[in-house]
Amino acid sequence: MKKLATLLTDFTESDGYPAAMKGVMLSITPDLTLIDLSHTVPPQNVLAGAMLLNRCAPFFPAGTMHVCVVDPGVGTQRRGIIAQFGSQFYVGPDNGLISLVYRRTLKESAAVAIHSLENPAFMLGSVSNSFHGRDIFAPAAAHFLNGVNLTDFGAEVTDPVLLQIPEPIKTNDGWKGEILHIDAFGNLATTIRAENLALNRNIQIILQGQTIKGLQRTFGAGKPGDLVAIIDSDGYLSVCVVNGSAQRFLDAKAGDSIQIMFS
Amino acid sequence: MKKLATLLTDFTESDGYPAAMKGVMLSITPDLTLIDLSHTVPPQNVLAGAMLLNRCAPFFPAGTMHVCVVDPGVGTQRRGIIAQFGSQFYVGPDNGLISLVYRRTLKESAAVAIHSLENPAFMLGSVSNSFHGRDIFAPAAAHFLNGVNLTDFGAEVTDPVLLQIPEPIKTNDGWKGEILHIDAFGNLATTIRAENLALNRNIQIILQGQTIKGLQRTFGAGKPGDLVAIIDSDGYLSVCVVNGSAQRFLDAKAGDSIQIMFS
Amino acid sequence: MKKLATLLTDFTESDGYPAAMKGVMLSITPDLTLIDLSHTVPPQNVLAGAMLLNRCAPFFPAGTMHVCVVDPGVGTQRRGIIAQFGSQFYVGPDNGLISLVYRRTLKESAAVAIHSLENPAFMLGSVSNSFHGRDIFAPAAAHFLNGVNLTDFGAEVTDPVLLQIPEPIKTNDGWKGEILHIDAFGNLATTIRAENLALNRNIQIILQGQTIKGLQRTFGAGKPGDLVAIIDSDGYLSVCVVNGSAQRFLDAKAGDSIQIMFS
Repeated sequence: MKKLATLLTDFTESDGYPAAMKGVMLSITPDLTLIDLSHTVPPQNVLAGAMLLNRCAPFFPAGTMHVCVVDPGVGTQRRGIIAQFGSQFYVGPDNGLISLVYRRTLKESAAVAIHSLENPAFMLGSVSNSFHGRDIFAPAAAHFLNGVNLTDFGAEVTDPVLLQIPEPIKTNDGWKGEILHIDAFGNLATTIRAENLALNRNIQIILQGQTIKGLQRTFGAGKPGDLVAIIDSDGYLSVCVVNGSAQRFLDAKAGDSIQIMFS
Repeated sequence: MKKLATLLTDFTESDGYPAAMKGVMLSITPDLTLIDLSHTVPPQNVLAGAMLLNRCAPFFPAGTMHVCVVDPGVGTQRRGIIAQFGSQFYVGPDNGLISLVYRRTLKESAAVAIHSLENPAFMLGSVSNSFHGRDIFAPAAAHFLNGVNLTDFGAEVTDPVLLQIPEPIKTNDGWKGEILHIDAFGNLATTIRAENLALNRNIQIILQGQTIKGLQRTFGAGKPGDLVAIIDSDGYLSVCVVNGSAQRFLDAKAGDSIQIMFS
Repeated sequence: MKKLATLLTDFTESDGYPAAMKGVMLSITPDLTLIDLSHTVPPQNVLAGAMLLNRCAPFFPAGTMHVCVVDPGVGTQRRGIIAQFGSQFYVGPDNGLISLVYRRTLKESAAVAIHSLENPAFMLGSVSNSFHGRDIFAPAAAHFLNGVNLTDFGAEVTDPVLLQIPEPIKTNDGWKGEILHIDAFGNLATTIRAENLALNRNIQIILQGQTIKGLQRTFGAGKPGDLVAIIDSDGYLSVCVVNGSAQRFLDAKAGDSIQIMFS
């Protein structure tokens, strides 16, 4: 099987931190293929990292190892973990980054196993207090893809840290939700999912004092500048401006509330 | 032959969309080599994407497949296409992204073949309305590099969408042109090309009320802060500030006019 | 041995310049593995590039070739060089980018050899004046990894350009230094190194009118918003705001002075 690892961090590439991680990995396991998920997760935003991991992971092959480092607690007592979620693998801090892939794996009744990163044999010789991505997580991933077993890294973990993800609330005539994620185009993904709407496109969407009537099939169904609602490629109800930014148009931010009314 | 694919999008890497495309491709064809052309094409700017593709493609090996997704019309009636341009290949929307490589290939009398993406066998099982990069274009590229023929994807296309690229206009004593592209350094590439100047360096360049006398061999030929004109590495007449930004210095934008006077 | 090359530039990826370099390299040597160190070095900032190279290189395998292009003097008389530093290699302009890896290699008494890039056999057929990264450095790296010897590229260079790196100054009761580098999180790395402090954590750090008492083990040791000092993952004394930006908090910039007092 191909030895494939992805990297997900909030480091940006500007200072070379992801590159140092890749150097460590290739020094241990030269025949790796390395793919960047993103290095521009908003700084210290574990929820945004968890969502991004969950957005990408389903499209990667069985056996992929995801090295994820959004890690405001680096150097404190927070654990490092290495984990199996179905046919894929994760290494990184135990701070909730796995929340969405973990819950999805349980829902699919696929195998889950989580181990603590304790064995110094699979760390760099000298471990810094502020860059475990390079000194602990990258080497763990490379050793794992080299054939080391999960159980060799440390004790089993049965109580991983999990984030509370905001869920939409059923109302008399629809749903109350909030903006969960804003992408680089300024599209507003909400906590409302396709399954909440039962494919009912006869709805009104109210946010920031604006009302949007009905769902469009896609961005391009409106005129440039139109405010439209679609089911996005992750299955979320998303509010967009055609060829523009709904974030700027509505001055919206994550957490802002949204209301759905069936009619 | 090496299975080499490049990716060109306006997605940014921030949300993991290019990574999802790569996951799809590696799931279908594990022994791919993937190279990013850029994921920061200005949003929905098809011309900028077409220029970037044309700037990079000549330097890639025969057999390279370029997966290009600057796609404001995603989910509408616009076609998807897969195409051969000489020894290289393209997959993406039929919206003009191929304009420059298409015209260059015709000029070089090299082989051109364009087919429509219709065959669901080479798409993901479930196709979203807003992310054909992941659901249609990425799988098409991976299947092609796996040995599928162009003709297996769909009917031949003889009328691809092509952009009108602004051309310079001959005047009595020189040329009138415009700013075509501004790069990340703030250098202003214009529609005037080296061949328009017949290597005549005895010229005056007038833009934004400023006059530049003569052509320099390179940026570094002036003092920091100097406004200079050079023939850039793509063969365009380009206006630059040494160690600075001509865009900021001249408050310039794409489309601003420029005048060349021979003397 | 794996043929591994890294790329370090100030081009950004936006215009496709790093991609053109990769195309050139893969056209010459198809079985390369290519890793980005960074393409967002601050424009023309050779010192920042030299620090980034030195930060990453130690973590890469023996045999790695680093292609580095922060090159304000492109097209002028400045030389291009190809060099060995211990078990690794460098190609790029002779403008000081190698300063830190060069000095480290001398300190470690490892092999150093530097040659001028003169042989047109290892350049593109047509060399532009403004993009030697694509036309000279990328092909040199690819030919080298294909088996060409350093001595085949040109004459030996015994006087490479080296930058002066600011050094801290001993005072009666501590050290005077300055801010050397600000990373993307806004952490302020200073010229003071761990060895200057002799692991003495009983210190006061004074900068921008603020006094920080003592060293913390890591960012996460303080409360969000706290101003803390740590030894960073490169061994530098670094001033940070927990889950925030010390750069913004202190309105700090590279070159600002810092004072250390032992007590």
